[in-house]
Amino acid sequence: MIRPTPEAAEPPLVGESVGDRAGQHDQQDESDQDDHFHDQCGVFGVYGSAEAAHFTYLGLHALQHRGQESAGIAVVDQGRLTMHRELGLVRDVFTANVLSRLSGDCSIGHVRYSTAGETHIKNAQPLAVDYALGSIAVAHNGNFTNYEETRELLESQGSIFQSTNDSEILVHLIARATETNAVDRVAAALQRVQGAFSLLFLTNKELIAVRDPHGFRPLSLGRFKDAWVFASEPPAFDLIDATYVRDIEPGEMVVIDESGIRSYRPFAPTPRKMCIFEYVYFARPDSMLAGVSVYEARKRMGEALAREAPAEADLVIAVPDSGISAALGYSRASGIPFEVGLIRSHYVGRTFIEPQSSIRHFGVRLKLNPVRALLEGKRIVVVDDSIVRGTTSRKIVKMLRDAGAKEIHMRISSPPTRWPCFYGIDTPSRSELLASNHTIAEMAKYITCDSLGYVSIEALREAVGGNGFCDACFSGNYPVPFTSPTNHRRQLELAGL
Amino acid sequence: MIRPTPEAAEPPLVGESVGDRAGQHDQQDESDQDDHFHDQCGVFGVYGSAEAAHFTYLGLHALQHRGQESAGIAVVDQGRLTMHRELGLVRDVFTANVLSRLSGDCSIGHVRYSTAGETHIKNAQPLAVDYALGSIAVAHNGNFTNYEETRELLESQGSIFQSTNDSEILVHLIARATETNAVDRVAAALQRVQGAFSLLFLTNKELIAVRDPHGFRPLSLGRFKDAWVFASEPPAFDLIDATYVRDIEPGEMVVIDESGIRSYRPFAPTPRKMCIFEYVYFARPDSMLAGVSVYEARKRMGEALAREAPAEADLVIAVPDSGISAALGYSRASGIPFEVGLIRSHYVGRTFIEPQSSIRHFGVRLKLNPVRALLEGKRIVVVDDSIVRGTTSRKIVKMLRDAGAKEIHMRISSPPTRWPCFYGIDTPSRSELLASNHTIAEMAKYITCDSLGYVSIEALREAVGGNGFCDACFSGNYPVPFTSPTNHRRQLELAGL
Amino acid sequence: MIRPTPEAAEPPLVGESVGDRAGQHDQQDESDQDDHFHDQCGVFGVYGSAEAAHFTYLGLHALQHRGQESAGIAVVDQGRLTMHRELGLVRDVFTANVLSRLSGDCSIGHVRYSTAGETHIKNAQPLAVDYALGSIAVAHNGNFTNYEETRELLESQGSIFQSTNDSEILVHLIARATETNAVDRVAAALQRVQGAFSLLFLTNKELIAVRDPHGFRPLSLGRFKDAWVFASEPPAFDLIDATYVRDIEPGEMVVIDESGIRSYRPFAPTPRKMCIFEYVYFARPDSMLAGVSVYEARKRMGEALAREAPAEADLVIAVPDSGISAALGYSRASGIPFEVGLIRSHYVGRTFIEPQSSIRHFGVRLKLNPVRALLEGKRIVVVDDSIVRGTTSRKIVKMLRDAGAKEIHMRISSPPTRWPCFYGIDTPSRSELLASNHTIAEMAKYITCDSLGYVSIEALREAVGGNGFCDACFSGNYPVPFTSPTNHRRQLELAGL
Amino acid sequence: MIRPTPEAAEPPLVGESVGDRAGQHDQQDESDQDDHFHDQCGVFGVYGSAEAAHFTYLGLHALQHRGQESAGIAVVDQGRLTMHRELGLVRDVFTANVLSRLSGDCSIGHVRYSTAGETHIKNAQPLAVDYALGSIAVAHNGNFTNYEETRELLESQGSIFQSTNDSEILVHLIARATETNAVDRVAAALQRVQGAFSLLFLTNKELIAVRDPHGFRPLSLGRFKDAWVFASEPPAFDLIDATYVRDIEPGEMVVIDESGIRSYRPFAPTPRKMCIFEYVYFARPDSMLAGVSVYEARKRMGEALAREAPAEADLVIAVPDSGISAALGYSRASGIPFEVGLIRSHYVGRTFIEPQSSIRHFGVRLKLNPVRALLEGKRIVVVDDSIVRGTTSRKIVKMLRDAGAKEIHMRISSPPTRWPCFYGIDTPSRSELLASNHTIAEMAKYITCDSLGYVSIEALREAVGGNGFCDACFSGNYPVPFTSPTNHRRQLELAGL
Repeated sequence: MIRPTPEAAEPPLVGESVGDRAGQHDQQDESDQDDHFHDQCGVFGVYGSAEAAHFTYLGLHALQHRGQESAGIAVVDQGRLTMHRELGLVRDVFTANVLSRLSGDCSIGHVRYSTAGETHIKNAQPLAVDYALGSIAVAHNGNFTNYEETRELLESQGSIFQSTNDSEILVHLIARATETNAVDRVAAALQRVQGAFSLLFLTNKELIAVRDPHGFRPLSLGRFKDAWVFASEPPAFDLIDATYVRDIEPGEMVVIDESGIRSYRPFAPTPRKMCIFEYVYFARPDSMLAGVSVYEARKRMGEALAREAPAEADLVIAVPDSGISAALGYSRASGIPFEVGLIRSHYVGRTFIEPQSSIRHFGVRLKLNPVRALLEGKRIVVVDDSIVRGTTSRKIVKMLRDAGAKEIHMRISSPPTRWPCFYGIDTPSRSELLASNHTIAEMAKYITCDSLGYVSIEALREAVGGNGFCDACFSGNYPVPFTSPTNHRRQLELAGL
Repeated sequence: MIRPTPEAAEPPLVGESVGDRAGQHDQQDESDQDDHFHDQCGVFGVYGSAEAAHFTYLGLHALQHRGQESAGIAVVDQGRLTMHRELGLVRDVFTANVLSRLSGDCSIGHVRYSTAGETHIKNAQPLAVDYALGSIAVAHNGNFTNYEETRELLESQGSIFQSTNDSEILVHLIARATETNAVDRVAAALQRVQGAFSLLFLTNKELIAVRDPHGFRPLSLGRFKDAWVFASEPPAFDLIDATYVRDIEPGEMVVIDESGIRSYRPFAPTPRKMCIFEYVYFARPDSMLAGVSVYEARKRMGEALAREAPAEADLVIAVPDSGISAALGYSRASGIPFEVGLIRSHYVGRTFIEPQSSIRHFGVRLKLNPVRALLEGKRIVVVDDSIVRGTTSRKIVKMLRDAGAKEIHMRISSPPTRWPCFYGIDTPSRSELLASNHTIAEMAKYITCDSLGYVSIEALREAVGGNGFCDACFSGNYPVPFTSPTNHRRQLELAGL
Repeated sequence: MIRPTPEAAEPPLVGESVGDRAGQHDQQDESDQDDHFHDQCGVFGVYGSAEAAHFTYLGLHALQHRGQESAGIAVVDQGRLTMHRELGLVRDVFTANVLSRLSGDCSIGHVRYSTAGETHIKNAQPLAVDYALGSIAVAHNGNFTNYEETRELLESQGSIFQSTNDSEILVHLIARATETNAVDRVAAALQRVQGAFSLLFLTNKELIAVRDPHGFRPLSLGRFKDAWVFASEPPAFDLIDATYVRDIEPGEMVVIDESGIRSYRPFAPTPRKMCIFEYVYFARPDSMLAGVSVYEARKRMGEALAREAPAEADLVIAVPDSGISAALGYSRASGIPFEVGLIRSHYVGRTFIEPQSSIRHFGVRLKLNPVRALLEGKRIVVVDDSIVRGTTSRKIVKMLRDAGAKEIHMRISSPPTRWPCFYGIDTPSRSELLASNHTIAEMAKYITCDSLGYVSIEALREAVGGNGFCDACFSGNYPVPFTSPTNHRRQLELAGL
Repeated sequence: MIRPTPEAAEPPLVGESVGDRAGQHDQQDESDQDDHFHDQCGVFGVYGSAEAAHFTYLGLHALQHRGQESAGIAVVDQGRLTMHRELGLVRDVFTANVLSRLSGDCSIGHVRYSTAGETHIKNAQPLAVDYALGSIAVAHNGNFTNYEETRELLESQGSIFQSTNDSEILVHLIARATETNAVDRVAAALQRVQGAFSLLFLTNKELIAVRDPHGFRPLSLGRFKDAWVFASEPPAFDLIDATYVRDIEPGEMVVIDESGIRSYRPFAPTPRKMCIFEYVYFARPDSMLAGVSVYEARKRMGEALAREAPAEADLVIAVPDSGISAALGYSRASGIPFEVGLIRSHYVGRTFIEPQSSIRHFGVRLKLNPVRALLEGKRIVVVDDSIVRGTTSRKIVKMLRDAGAKEIHMRISSPPTRWPCFYGIDTPSRSELLASNHTIAEMAKYITCDSLGYVSIEALREAVGGNGFCDACFSGNYPVPFTSPTNHRRQLELAGL
């Protein structure tokens, strides 16, 4: 398989490395990447505004937390499709000059998550191609679980691949479909892929928004004057003064063209399985997903945590930013005062060059610093959203201990993360997930905290409003069946079975 | 006077604009700059470590909140002085390549605040020159109140100026002094300048740290193994695993060379007048200044605010990040629950390109978004640190109102800002300071909040531990006398008298 | 069809624009592009050297005159294919850092010509894809005359296109072929394309070099120690100290793999039709093509020109650089002394920003300046290689006249260019070719020279060694038949019939 | 003394390294720098045109051969001085954006030569400062022979230095002068410096052009509509359609302000000593200096060379570009045909990354390639302008020999270069000058040519029109006396005495 130049950042297409800006990102290295789920992707779309690309740019900025690796916008102007995508943050990729060239009244955009290491390198989006019926661009949040077998099948039929981007199988399926219009072809192609997908398509004349039947990833519809807008999360509407209308339903395909907006259901009915981890970590706290406030859900997780894993302590602090709402909930339910005991730096983002003189838990220090005056001699509850490999938690505990904390009680606002995700989150294999192979007591010992407590899966479900969620990462209950030997093998491998 | 190319970012020297990176910064525009005090400067120094420049780079990163416009490091290697400075953030200016060229065991560094508009353009530091006794570099946090008359005097004596950097008068004074060694010349030169200064000097063989007699700006001494380190704020020591030793005293000059460290007092005894606003806004919450925790001081301000300006409300929120500690204090003292009602974006920094379709309070939206689920139908106390022109507060109030807040009670954790600062803070003239010309009621009306309350100067003083502070921005009591007609005139002008 | 952002430089793939470096090239504008054939493409390959990419980089540098728009190198290391391509000159695209990542012992590279305007935008090469049998990269010099109908056919069969790059149809044909190994698939695919092609393919284990049956474009084989090298022109071997072995024959396919080098003839026998214009303009003067020295051939053209179009004159000058050898030949045959009457700037390359105050024939002035001391009062023979639209010639004549030349006799070292090229040269349509619609007298009048003379086609043929050349641009005798209505229509259109 | 970061390219000021663009130039390395005099500097100025900066930019482009390291332009707009300077070529430094910010109707500009290695690093110009009478910018071509003692004197009087730029002493002298207007101060300051200088000054209201009393470096006056223009060489006028008026005379100071243009003679009368090497190598062949055509002078050198150092040979070739006119002269006088036997690459400029596999005379190969078809079996006369260290000549001879040349007769169009230059040319010390320590026969042996011949000093003088030239590099007759022990010592040192 073609590979980009080793260590190179995400290339526009597999097998191709890019220029200066990429070089900078070679060094991108979130210092705590070893121990957190990574962001994933965000999509945004506009139909019917003279400033479509500009609004998409602002919308992507509001979704930047879902992906910092690359950003791209495709736009249609009088039937002609233009695209710009590049490695980097939205604010860096889209200069006034670039934006001015993206004229047109329909637009889709994409931000992509940042990971390090060759095996994680995926590709910038949107992907745009020409095929028999014209041009089509696609922005994808999610993951096709039958990508590999579909790619192999397509290759055996004579298809060429220029990336390892999931979406490339989709455009091949569309190009090979026999339906006579783009909408039907998209529907036909989608019936051949499985897994998690919130997708925006831009053709020469339509904008199509689709959410997979399980509705793993969020996708919302909004209104800005006469234009329709789509976003992974509703706060992206706030930024551009658009109004949230409703969520795209699981299994729904919304098509907008000159004749208006209409909705299809091209999939068999399936139970909703929205990703519960969006509430725990991914989504913005100011988001409302499936009618539930992320902030309030997190506070409820913290409250449940206080009940299920109480601690004798002098104060509650959070690992910022994701742990803050839950820490406030814990404080509220326990009566233990909340304080901002760890200060987060706003200026991290790229690798800092580590000195030769070793500095203890260097990576964490760059991001977080303890407020010694608060912590000295105190018994501390530290609330975090999850533990992946445990290395960052271990560093944080040491840092707090160095700052004078007398006792450290680590509390996690979700259940133990024991299973890898196949639906769009970049998780390590089971063998690397600390909770897969260790008891809570062993974990606490590794992390060197005085106690470790998790919220129960039941309480988590209650916090987010009950049923209809995929919690495979906690429970191992994967909603999408294993469809092929390859797929199955890989799944087992990751799952460590 | 020579000017840099108009609209150009901060040039290395006046009259000179710089390359690509500068171009990017052309667009730098903190979206809420209209209504907050700006950061100022930070300095860091190392004497006696093989990785001096590397530690300075990390120390400057920890001081990045004090200045985002430019960063620079000077280093001495076997008596030879080398320097690198550039516009941009520490992480961008100092690549592995640049750092590798800055070998040497003594180093000083500087970060500078970012402002917009030609009149605010100052110059990158350190400033490094050759003169009769060798080379000298200087990093300066503060402002000389007699800069203009001293420059005029020096020019009349045949001096040339290549910048509008305060520090340039200082090196001229050092070069023109008649003492026979660098330390004595520095002491002599410092007796001819007035105002606020925390200074680090690097000569071919010494590192000199000085704090002005009033001690306006902070400066701390630390220890890293055998090396001595200096930083504007102690958390910069934390990042590199160095230990805080003590503050440099107001009026103290510390000299380190081969023969060791020693302390001088080259100034007449003067009452300490440390900037009280460091506690209110500038300093990191994890800083300890003059023995007082900034975080704790802010919490006390919030508590006093709750007593002095109570409100009937359902929840207390902060304008992040500076208002958070005070909001927690307000919540604690009032019993009204604290919530994170405004989410701050981590990805702002440069100007975002505003669309033509007007978006209400666009600038604030890029940085802050309300958590609607929390605010809807609620009576809100919003805690902020200060009000300058009032425009940002007004936008925040509107944004909260749009998000459903029923009542909005704005509470400020410092007294009304009525007077300009002449000691290193970039404040507007009196006529632009909202509190200079309006009653509290008028201000509340302008800001459109339901009520507006400030903390009293007495309570503020108590929160920071009593006397010994400059609070001229609140009281108009300027500790440094007017020394010349020019100086006086300018001061009156800014003061609107 | 998807288009790149308008005015953007050549994107890596159609529909995609690229970063900073591209932005610079937005402005690329050869000042005399209005009146010369443009460079086309150059390819270079290495099989079996530990520094394959490095040698390819140097080889591409020696071929830089054949294309300044983009440069790319693909390399295979233990069966894995890596690629880097970018807009810009070889020296700028391939930094030490980039080269160090291109490890492997087989490599192909490509430089591409620079044109302006959207319709001329083609795509960077090599093109690299994955397909059923593995990875394949291709570097192409030439043009497929049946590109459009083949693309349409492929699209109708479900192929997607990510560029408007000729080579993309080739990789689709390879991917859809049914042969079971790469070499046979390449051969099969090549039987379905028509036109001009000198191609290098790199697979996971083979390097394949092919020249079309007519041999329109040059391609040579060389030896460097144990490695085999390929280059569009032999001087590229000189640079790396390799030895020229022989030309790849028209219709020959050379395959190198672990088992050695072997030659195939996958095409029906066809008369050689090498591009005669390579001798007139494209090739380096130090090249030897088909056994004929380009320098000597040009001198013979100049000698013939002196015989066929003599002039009473005081000196012979050339339009540098391409006209120099012919001008020496003219001087030799006529006895009129040769002088360097026009000085060429070495620093042109990008657009210079034209002042508002109009400067006469600005574009030409940036590149050329007359030596007034030589020209004043003299009768001048000016030798150039060809006239396309006539605008540059007109400017040169005026410039010489301004410099004091008394008479100007323009002499062209090729016959009138009357027909467009379909075999890889970017020529305007017939209606824009000055010689298509005007008599020599009319042309002279337009150009404002005192006389205009061309070399005859017979003399040109003799200068390059006789038969076996495509001279369609002079004669309209196109060696490749019209294969489809589309193709025919387009050809007629360009040909103005 | 402060030094810039080691290996860094030329910083704007000593002690300061600059950004990205500089980084690229780190690698700048003219491949044959070991064996040629380097270019030096070029200046250009405009008084009284609305597009002053734009014309200066174009003028500097025409002078680019005199310096490729840095480029800068200062402009005055309604009394305010603005400046932009940067490392790089004129075309790269001055983008449309930068130019648009340099509004004003008076302007001066500068290009600076490129050298490698720390000791050669000088500083970008213009230099611009504020002093008692306002602002002043200066662009300098030449070298002050009393720089070191003047700097020491100024430092002892309390001056600070921010660069090692010659011009910095000049602005100190101006600032310390007691005259009450800028023109008189400039005149006074100039009486205190010695050596070679063609200077342009820009003040808030005047443009001042001065040439040292010996007139070492050229400086011409031209007219463009109502504006006055100045340039190091007249072809810079051609580019902007300006008309050459006359040379600035040695010892003349021309002042232009609102009231018009006037001429002063602030120096004692001195014999003209124009640099003869300008004719041999520096100047453009299309230049007319002191009324003598450089092209014609070079041809006369070549003719003299043919007479004084004849050779039995089949053809005459030049080392391009500087040797071409002389080679034509040699050919004319000897009757041996001239051919272009070495092809020069247009794409060199930065260092090419050398492969590990050694390539014979790699550096020269990048720039030059022999035309084998011409050279094979031939006896060749190779004309070059000078030999410095001899290493490049040696490589060229080997390259020609490899290409089949039977005999190689190296002919140099100037006398042996035996003495270093103190007047603005960057030459090695005597010990490194091959001709200082070797006989012609020894040199020929080192260079491995069959014979070596030089032109005599008498013939050279005749070629350039007789007397009034500084030929110290050939004769050791230095026109400026040794003024101080320091100066003398250094001079002796360089001279190897």
